[in-house]
Amino acid sequence: MPEATNRRAYEQVVREKKHLDTPPVWLMRQAGRYLPEYNAIRANHSFLEVCHTPDLAAEVTLQPIRRFGFDASILFSDILVPLQPMGAELTFGKGHGPRIANTIRTAADLEQMKDIEPREALSEVLETVTILRRELPETVSLIGFAGAPFTLATYWIEGGKPDPFANVKRMQYAEPDAFRSLLDRLADMVSDYLIAQVEAGADAVQLFDTWAGILPDREFRQMILPSLQRILSRLREEDIPCTYFVRGSGHLVRSLGETGSDVVSLDWRTPLDEARDILPEGKVIQGNLDPTILLSGDESVIRRETRRVLNEAGDAPHIFNLGHGILPQTPIEAVEILLDEIRGGAR
Amino acid sequence: MPEATNRRAYEQVVREKKHLDTPPVWLMRQAGRYLPEYNAIRANHSFLEVCHTPDLAAEVTLQPIRRFGFDASILFSDILVPLQPMGAELTFGKGHGPRIANTIRTAADLEQMKDIEPREALSEVLETVTILRRELPETVSLIGFAGAPFTLATYWIEGGKPDPFANVKRMQYAEPDAFRSLLDRLADMVSDYLIAQVEAGADAVQLFDTWAGILPDREFRQMILPSLQRILSRLREEDIPCTYFVRGSGHLVRSLGETGSDVVSLDWRTPLDEARDILPEGKVIQGNLDPTILLSGDESVIRRETRRVLNEAGDAPHIFNLGHGILPQTPIEAVEILLDEIRGGAR
Repeated sequence: MPEATNRRAYEQVVREKKHLDTPPVWLMRQAGRYLPEYNAIRANHSFLEVCHTPDLAAEVTLQPIRRFGFDASILFSDILVPLQPMGAELTFGKGHGPRIANTIRTAADLEQMKDIEPREALSEVLETVTILRRELPETVSLIGFAGAPFTLATYWIEGGKPDPFANVKRMQYAEPDAFRSLLDRLADMVSDYLIAQVEAGADAVQLFDTWAGILPDREFRQMILPSLQRILSRLREEDIPCTYFVRGSGHLVRSLGETGSDVVSLDWRTPLDEARDILPEGKVIQGNLDPTILLSGDESVIRRETRRVLNEAGDAPHIFNLGHGILPQTPIEAVEILLDEIRGGAR
Repeated sequence: MPEATNRRAYEQVVREKKHLDTPPVWLMRQAGRYLPEYNAIRANHSFLEVCHTPDLAAEVTLQPIRRFGFDASILFSDILVPLQPMGAELTFGKGHGPRIANTIRTAADLEQMKDIEPREALSEVLETVTILRRELPETVSLIGFAGAPFTLATYWIEGGKPDPFANVKRMQYAEPDAFRSLLDRLADMVSDYLIAQVEAGADAVQLFDTWAGILPDREFRQMILPSLQRILSRLREEDIPCTYFVRGSGHLVRSLGETGSDVVSLDWRTPLDEARDILPEGKVIQGNLDPTILLSGDESVIRRETRRVLNEAGDAPHIFNLGHGILPQTPIEAVEILLDEIRGGAR
């Protein structure tokens, strides 16, 4: 062990902004369909059922830790789960993604939205966090998470997978006050929810803003950066380290550095060395191996590309991760090769 | 009329790299589902039927010209049409996008792919072009088009809408020679096909590389730029002006300037003034109003955002367009406001 400290490796990096020669590693969607033990549970339980049953959610969260010994574990849930107690009629069907029956597209629609106290309305999720903090090995950090306001809003406005965002953008331009109000109310829920997750046992949190990359930088700054800063300043008061992730963020890197997050998680299209030149000094970077690299199963390709990411991170404080969620088709061996390349047989 | 010349406005810009104070304007997917006259034809004919019937394809191509008087007309067809004679078993079903039953994922699969002579195999499309050049007003340029090799390959490899590209990337890394050979054979078809469209009456061409934006710049340069340069050097020999479009290309702008295309068509996320600083001097830029801006129906928003695009283009040679295809939900009046703002009552 090159570094001796009381803190876990993941927290050394995100809290102390420290560069570790062997960076901590975890993978977005590491609890998921590429794991046979996950599929065995899903054979008997729907996705939402797993999210809402603390023992099941904790079990699938622990599966990749047992198998691979990642440095961090991320709560198994879905970004849309907190929208249910807020009033969204959410379903996940077979063969399609999430659907929300009662869309929000106008100021009047906002009235159906309820403000919630996450400690009550999302107690099952918080119970999962508590179980996890008890069951996880002492060396493994537990990351809580939430969807960021814009991304949550896109699903509720469109009533499902938001692309091509027709109603989102119509609301953004035709009802700007209602749109801002929607983001602000979601931001307050997200802040409360993330703080409650840390109270329940999470060591840090991550905000997923999957769809913010559709916005030009100008709109990102005008329309959604304030709601992000609102969350991040709440988290800073509570001394909670936070990572911010956007898919397709190559045109937004400078702005990603201004949300107030401790860590910027980059997608596979932004070279980490270029991002370092743009982001403020000392910002932690997370990422960013292209998840499709793992599909080839070719050991030399996986080692070469993993090494490239490590080289691009250089001496920056760095959490190794993928540039997006791990794909269901990923072979288990590919993850083992990735970990071996990062850890270099040192553990 | 501020500019007097023998050439049509669109061709003055793409051939002579000239800045016009009133830039030529057309919209990607201008023949499409936002037009009631288009929907009237589609009520009786499937999408592929329209593509394959010269009178119908010409009619829907002419519809937006009659209604709006755009400066350029783009052949109505689909990028996947030439894959049919090459051996792809292509269908378009209701409620889902294109499907290709016989996927290409290995070197062995490549053997089912036929090389074609577009003058024979795609004679219906070329007949449409000939009808159009005869029927179009003399002032309106006719643009032919094709999908770029990478984007065509993604559909054939995945057997439909390619996202999340699992098989594409597996082939790219596990069978790099077969992947390159697939791109090269598609590049040769695309070159022949575009040249045949110009012989049949098209004045210029556009290459659509919708999905190339999933690639990091490094892969774009290594894996697909050579196939693009192969096409562009053929077109240059034939003196055919060409536009190259990629969706989500903010991280690729420098490389977009190196394909050899006369025009770079930018998506809505890349400010045109920033692109001008990166692209080679004199490169024509096309774009890039966010198509969702037209959905609000708010006249002041549409005028303001249209003006912003014009200001960002500044004194560069510029073709006004959207940053992506016009959306089916777009109100007709929004297009009228857009045109009025660009043309400023001068015509």
